[in-house]
Amino acid sequence: MTTSHNHVAARFAAVDWGTSSFRLWVLGASGQVLAERRSDEGMIRCAEVTGFQAVLDAHLAALSVSPSLPVLCCGMVGARQGWIEAPYAETGTPLSGLSGQAVQAPHPARKVMILPGVAQRRDGPPDIMRGEETLILGIMDGTAAVVAQPGTHSKWIETDGHTITRFSTQLTGELFSLISSKSTLGPLISPDAEFVPDTPTYLKAMDRTLADPAVVLEELFALRAGGVLGLTSPEAARATLSALLIGAEIALVRRRYHKTHVRLLASGTAAKLYGAALSRAGIAFTLDDAESATRRGLFLAARNLGWTE
Amino acid sequence: MTTSHNHVAARFAAVDWGTSSFRLWVLGASGQVLAERRSDEGMIRCAEVTGFQAVLDAHLAALSVSPSLPVLCCGMVGARQGWIEAPYAETGTPLSGLSGQAVQAPHPARKVMILPGVAQRRDGPPDIMRGEETLILGIMDGTAAVVAQPGTHSKWIETDGHTITRFSTQLTGELFSLISSKSTLGPLISPDAEFVPDTPTYLKAMDRTLADPAVVLEELFALRAGGVLGLTSPEAARATLSALLIGAEIALVRRRYHKTHVRLLASGTAAKLYGAALSRAGIAFTLDDAESATRRGLFLAARNLGWTE
Repeated sequence: MTTSHNHVAARFAAVDWGTSSFRLWVLGASGQVLAERRSDEGMIRCAEVTGFQAVLDAHLAALSVSPSLPVLCCGMVGARQGWIEAPYAETGTPLSGLSGQAVQAPHPARKVMILPGVAQRRDGPPDIMRGEETLILGIMDGTAAVVAQPGTHSKWIETDGHTITRFSTQLTGELFSLISSKSTLGPLISPDAEFVPDTPTYLKAMDRTLADPAVVLEELFALRAGGVLGLTSPEAARATLSALLIGAEIALVRRRYHKTHVRLLASGTAAKLYGAALSRAGIAFTLDDAESATRRGLFLAARNLGWTE
Repeated sequence: MTTSHNHVAARFAAVDWGTSSFRLWVLGASGQVLAERRSDEGMIRCAEVTGFQAVLDAHLAALSVSPSLPVLCCGMVGARQGWIEAPYAETGTPLSGLSGQAVQAPHPARKVMILPGVAQRRDGPPDIMRGEETLILGIMDGTAAVVAQPGTHSKWIETDGHTITRFSTQLTGELFSLISSKSTLGPLISPDAEFVPDTPTYLKAMDRTLADPAVVLEELFALRAGGVLGLTSPEAARATLSALLIGAEIALVRRRYHKTHVRLLASGTAAKLYGAALSRAGIAFTLDDAESATRRGLFLAARNLGWTE
């Protein structure tokens, strides 16, 4: 972008710094985007290769951002293995107070603050998030909701409109990847077939795990056997594996939250697949964009810090 | 062994040739073991590196086995990627007729026969076995039973005493290995902790999946979160993962077969863990040794071929 971000309007830089991605926006007083940068310099790469400060400084320099402009970050950059640990806030903490628990990163010349994640230590299995709490802050409107952010680690977050009351994480995307590429099923699963969530095979598989999520454990080997017996093509195996895992995820969430409406934060393929699955499960949803929700959460947190009015 | 296997008593050689193991016994007229060999020259290694005939010949030569002695094999050696494909028999085929579907391997000087596996194409998800059918033949006594052979791919086989009526395979051992060593949970799971199946942590985790096998999908990430939050030690995470997966397996099997007694074919750690899990689930079991069951199955099949009286 070629906007006037280095003039009076720029108030701070907002960074969504995840496990494997880096996104930076220079924001104005009302949250307007004046410039942006994105790369794959996520937490893992920074911790193992480049360092954090060097990456941040390079992106800011590329945008000629003033040294006096502060930076507010969220995400895995605040993990123990990140730049500096920002200890977790607890479930039940008002999200309007998140910025009060931000931790300053050791930058020699610039104010860089990192927002905490949120931990669940009771009322359910232990769980943690880093980044999604900022997203929830960004879309919170005072009303209760269940918010889904599907992906490698799908998160289902219940908010009462002010705090995160409880949440759960499922490894759906990671299991899909492990099973399709690193298991003995791998050779029988197409590595890259496109599939659409409305074929009979896909819907039948999803209906089975929507009705009973446990059957996914019984049906995994059936994908291998079906391939060996010539009953299941590698493309059908890929679609079926996706349908089984997503159906099981939705079924578990449905019985946990008893909701007939969720807010789905997704885009691209994930939005398509999870939208279809929610519809199949009889759960209505409204679709929002995760990236702009996180950016807005960073803006609100910065405002709570007094960085903008 | 230093028995007189190359004298009159030896009738044939029996080989259990699996994915990653090779076991050969020279058997006498009544099935007595006259000599034996075992190695890690399983199907994968033979297919990729050594070849099948060379491995078999070397083991027979080491025992000075007569060139006229026939050899009967079962297991993955008969898979498509094995020595020669022995097409699957179908569920419902009398196991006494398995030997009639044996396929002759292309050996220039010796009679080598390979028993078929068994495939399930209806009455349940597609499934396949190679080797376990011979084990079932070896323990079959005319009465109906459910037979469990736990492992990397746990098999639960229902027999009416004459045929395999249906069976199911679960990836329990493979999932344990994938999740504990190749997933993002890996760094928080002890790679080699010994655990005993009677600690409170282990039993509580097992009770959760025995009651509801689907929760394993919800609790996987909790192992990671518990580790990050300092609530779960790597040793406890390893034990819990095992308990969750084995509990889910038993729960699924319990509702599928409605049996209060099973025959457990296992030894070592698997016997200990699955015995404890079956007891916890209220399922009685009798423990048998898988190796001698397979050897006896090969003996009975050889007798059906007329190789011994």
